[in-house]
Amino acid sequence: MTNPTRIAPDTFTAAPALIALDWGTTSLRAYLYDAHGALLATRSRAAGVMHVPAGGARAFDAAFEDACGDWLDRAPGVPVLAAGMVGSAQGWREAPYVEAPAGVDALVAGIVTIESARGATVSIVPGVIAAGELPDVMRGEETQIVGALDEASSIGADHSGLLIGLPGTHAKWAWVKRGLVERFQTFMTGELFGALRDHTILGRTMRPPEAPDRAAFLRGVSVARGAQRAGLLATIFSTRTLGLTGRLAPQAQGDYLSGLLIGHELNALDTMLAERGVSLANQPLLLIGDDVLCARYAAALHAFGCPHARVVADATERGLWRIASRAGLVRADSAPVCAD
Amino acid sequence: MTNPTRIAPDTFTAAPALIALDWGTTSLRAYLYDAHGALLATRSRAAGVMHVPAGGARAFDAAFEDACGDWLDRAPGVPVLAAGMVGSAQGWREAPYVEAPAGVDALVAGIVTIESARGATVSIVPGVIAAGELPDVMRGEETQIVGALDEASSIGADHSGLLIGLPGTHAKWAWVKRGLVERFQTFMTGELFGALRDHTILGRTMRPPEAPDRAAFLRGVSVARGAQRAGLLATIFSTRTLGLTGRLAPQAQGDYLSGLLIGHELNALDTMLAERGVSLANQPLLLIGDDVLCARYAAALHAFGCPHARVVADATERGLWRIASRAGLVRADSAPVCAD
Repeated sequence: MTNPTRIAPDTFTAAPALIALDWGTTSLRAYLYDAHGALLATRSRAAGVMHVPAGGARAFDAAFEDACGDWLDRAPGVPVLAAGMVGSAQGWREAPYVEAPAGVDALVAGIVTIESARGATVSIVPGVIAAGELPDVMRGEETQIVGALDEASSIGADHSGLLIGLPGTHAKWAWVKRGLVERFQTFMTGELFGALRDHTILGRTMRPPEAPDRAAFLRGVSVARGAQRAGLLATIFSTRTLGLTGRLAPQAQGDYLSGLLIGHELNALDTMLAERGVSLANQPLLLIGDDVLCARYAAALHAFGCPHARVVADATERGLWRIASRAGLVRADSAPVCAD
Repeated sequence: MTNPTRIAPDTFTAAPALIALDWGTTSLRAYLYDAHGALLATRSRAAGVMHVPAGGARAFDAAFEDACGDWLDRAPGVPVLAAGMVGSAQGWREAPYVEAPAGVDALVAGIVTIESARGATVSIVPGVIAAGELPDVMRGEETQIVGALDEASSIGADHSGLLIGLPGTHAKWAWVKRGLVERFQTFMTGELFGALRDHTILGRTMRPPEAPDRAAFLRGVSVARGAQRAGLLATIFSTRTLGLTGRLAPQAQGDYLSGLLIGHELNALDTMLAERGVSLANQPLLLIGDDVLCARYAAALHAFGCPHARVVADATERGLWRIASRAGLVRADSAPVCAD
């Protein structure tokens, strides 16, 4: 696989070979690649699945045309691949989940296609479901994980297993073995933080900090780590009581609560790993996501004795390219016809 | 102590001996007692501390007059006792917390008074603080606990300790020994449930049930109990994924989530008890609070092997009376002068 890099210098002269879409709940990102996997252009739209007006296929078609119409005019017949919530039951067309363990071959086998109004064939990557008493699901993260796998060797991970964290609104931790997503778990950490801050008593005494308060964040991580068995419900109220007793400034309370929640997430992760005989301490792992948030997780992981977190850049666009290659939508040695 | 009972038959002829106020964050309840501790009248107002308009003492005075002015007209000089958030820093006058372990004597010693505009002396019961690395606080619940202590012998609790649960927005569990609140813990269970239902993705697929779904609630309790170590963050997303996979109806998702949260609260309680060599299983305990919510907790406790929860009625009004008696504000053998 060729790693796509940001915007090739010959942006407007190279032949487009692939349009790929990271089409999630809140936004749509579009990537245009040349035949070598270099990015020619990227775009972002607010037309996430939850923002596409009711109206089904027609509304998705309009959002697709708005984002990529001129690219398609220029390169008719260029293949299109999409991943994320666009393949959910609320999306453009449902691409049923494939069951874990699943790797790139299972994802390719599960691709569904839809023809757009102008006749473009859009291939949609399925999500992954982990069956069991408490099922779990992902859509979009499977593509990012595929995009990160090349980094496994760089952190010394072997075939016995690789841990990948995807911090965010719904943080996920995945255990990958021989290229297959074997098991994963969703933590509603980001969304829970927002709900607690904006809609409970904890937010009432908080004030925004001038700069992120690293010490308060790490204090929250440490408190959570020391309260693994007591759990989250028994500790979050301390955000308020430490404030009431003058031991946590209003400007520090947000970062403290963030540390508490991420600390409890890592407690749970540590428990899950222990069940398979692995310890979080000294575990090599990859992080995928927003840089600032990944840095926060890396600091929390360090407090858990795990200093080996490596942040993977451009996992989404690399994963989309890799899945398109495996699906035969692109071949590095043959560029599609370009209309320009 | 005479147990107050609801509204004596001679409501308008007996001499008022005490006005007591349960003045919390969202509402104000006023109780009028005769000299034997029987209730002559009760009233409720929406004038909770958070609803009293800014303006400090004058606004509290107006709310007090609105609730109790005619009672005071009729019985000038009748003593007034208040408990709850009215004694907080945001209240009428701050009654600083007394430190746990604390019983009725410490509460009486911590009473502060304020004179109302008409010259009535209002005695305010302090809250209790449990000091430590993570402090915890209560205001109002200490009075309910005092009111429930007479029930201790009825459940076979001895001097070694009594467990009292106070379900609600901010649920509390207290360990009481020889009449002293020794340790307690706040769980933001009720408020967290509301925030998750109303302000996260979990609420989007929920539909209100026609009647409470006991089976779904107990399923949530059971899942939480089986995930003690994984914790809350690792299980709440199952509300959505069980729905996505057709294994939890939209109408059942609210009760399932409620069971999950209460189950995790009981996990934490069990851990706290284990630290003092006590098991939740077969532990006799008292519950104070809303009947429907207490029944929900009793069912969850039963699933944890604890079938001995006893719901205490009228704990607030009994506690207020008992503190007033101990403070010398009322004496059963001497009724105050009544203006009628």
